[in-house]
Amino acid sequence: MTGLIALDWGSSSLRAFRFDGAGRLAQTRARPWGVRQLPAGGYDAALADVTAGWPALPRLACGMVGSRNGWREMPYLDLPADAAQLAGALGAVHAADGSDVHLVPGLRDPHGPDLMRGEETQLVGALALRPALAGAGTFILPGTHSKWATVQGGAVTGFRTLMTGELFAVLQQHSMLGAIGAEAADDAAAFARGVATARDSGAAGALSRLFSARALMLDGALAPASVPDYLSGLLIGEEFRAALADGLARPDAPLQLVGDDALCERYRRAAALFGIELPAPLADAAAHGLWQLAVQARLVQRHPEESRAC
Amino acid sequence: MTGLIALDWGSSSLRAFRFDGAGRLAQTRARPWGVRQLPAGGYDAALADVTAGWPALPRLACGMVGSRNGWREMPYLDLPADAAQLAGALGAVHAADGSDVHLVPGLRDPHGPDLMRGEETQLVGALALRPALAGAGTFILPGTHSKWATVQGGAVTGFRTLMTGELFAVLQQHSMLGAIGAEAADDAAAFARGVATARDSGAAGALSRLFSARALMLDGALAPASVPDYLSGLLIGEEFRAALADGLARPDAPLQLVGDDALCERYRRAAALFGIELPAPLADAAAHGLWQLAVQARLVQRHPEESRAC
Repeated sequence: MTGLIALDWGSSSLRAFRFDGAGRLAQTRARPWGVRQLPAGGYDAALADVTAGWPALPRLACGMVGSRNGWREMPYLDLPADAAQLAGALGAVHAADGSDVHLVPGLRDPHGPDLMRGEETQLVGALALRPALAGAGTFILPGTHSKWATVQGGAVTGFRTLMTGELFAVLQQHSMLGAIGAEAADDAAAFARGVATARDSGAAGALSRLFSARALMLDGALAPASVPDYLSGLLIGEEFRAALADGLARPDAPLQLVGDDALCERYRRAAALFGIELPAPLADAAAHGLWQLAVQARLVQRHPEESRAC
Repeated sequence: MTGLIALDWGSSSLRAFRFDGAGRLAQTRARPWGVRQLPAGGYDAALADVTAGWPALPRLACGMVGSRNGWREMPYLDLPADAAQLAGALGAVHAADGSDVHLVPGLRDPHGPDLMRGEETQLVGALALRPALAGAGTFILPGTHSKWATVQGGAVTGFRTLMTGELFAVLQQHSMLGAIGAEAADDAAAFARGVATARDSGAAGALSRLFSARALMLDGALAPASVPDYLSGLLIGEEFRAALADGLARPDAPLQLVGDDALCERYRRAAALFGIELPAPLADAAAHGLWQLAVQARLVQRHPEESRAC
């Protein structure tokens, strides 16, 4: 039996993927056991549960499992870095079941500095899924901490973290902007208005327009239930405004979304208001990236009759 | 007995000032009874307590006491607006003790839109304290919701609200940036570094640099206990960067801080890193503004032998 058990192990969730020897995704499981909320028995118990009944295969994990507060701290590789360098820098932790779990290092952009852990593997997977962008492209990975990463010549050459998702959550839950006393509506027009406000804020930027979410509501120009969508648009729009100002998004370099459909759809709508048409997002990039890295690190041998890499 | 009882009644605090007939501040009291946290007995009980033993004088209040969730909702006057217009638009609420409490309206900047309530009175007081700025000047009122207001020809002509203080608080208390596991240091160098990061973020803006507070710490370049000062510098620096980009701060128009010493001192240090030297802040501007408005509205008559207005 050949194949791979790939683990995308973040702060708040654990996803496990079983690949067959040809690199085909055979099975997927998810557990709410991020490194901040492990079950009794810790990493070993979580691993035993999420892989129960699966054959003994090489195991490769990415994400916060390799952080200072994870199972074992892995270093950050400085940019520029490509898949071969990541595959050459894997570490391992010895699990209670007697076998190793290999771990992917993170990446560090010395300009900034900025750090990523988990997204480097998504980028490897995204490049395998869309190799045409390996020459030059920018990948957008929306999330709690969104990443915008530039790729040139197959290597990650720069990236920036935007705290969009976390900022939206804390403002909604803990600031005056969240005290709307109403169920959130699903208001696409309010979202678009927020995006446009960020876009039109010029060099001042959308942080200086944050209070508009409150002022428009008090002014009767925005329904209380639409404030969350307006705020979402303002913050996502600000990502595009700042990325364009920073040169992370350029009209001549293709942009590619990586991530889950619902959130990526918001980014596509925001991009359209900047005159940017984004193709459909790439899904399961972490799983595909783990497979690619396992192959490059010779943790798995591609099966002779395989027909496709991932 | 002539004079005035002036009430600066905000969301989280109530301050009462007794002026004598010559406009001299004779007595000051403070209570933690903002409109969001009134004592048993509500507004009337709070008023009776904070003015206990004082003579029966005209009473004038500004701030959130005149908001939708206050004692009586007062309108917002559209800009441009000066002290005479504010004084001409006072309202009143009939208190349980049989006399009126007069209320100051708020201001609305139709561009934005943006709103203020309480700060309009601080601006009137600030102009009385520093009349040389009535021709053209910009006032900075730091706080939970900072205001930058431009004055021309004695009237408020524009303003913008920056949620700096609230943003700092929610990020410190509820975001990953606050989870430092250490007592906050008092680190002036970290503050200055945050200001410089905002200043040098260019058109992208400091929101796109927020994660640097975390990345610098993980990178070993910023002590965990210094993250709060760095974040404070980043957010206050962003006020200056955005205000310069927006034309709210101009090299040719004098800037004047209004507010409490400790917070204003941070703004002065930030301004210095933008090459702007700010004079000492104006204190008790709300009290002086209430006196000015009471005089203009003829709620009080200036005493014949008075020697100064405030």
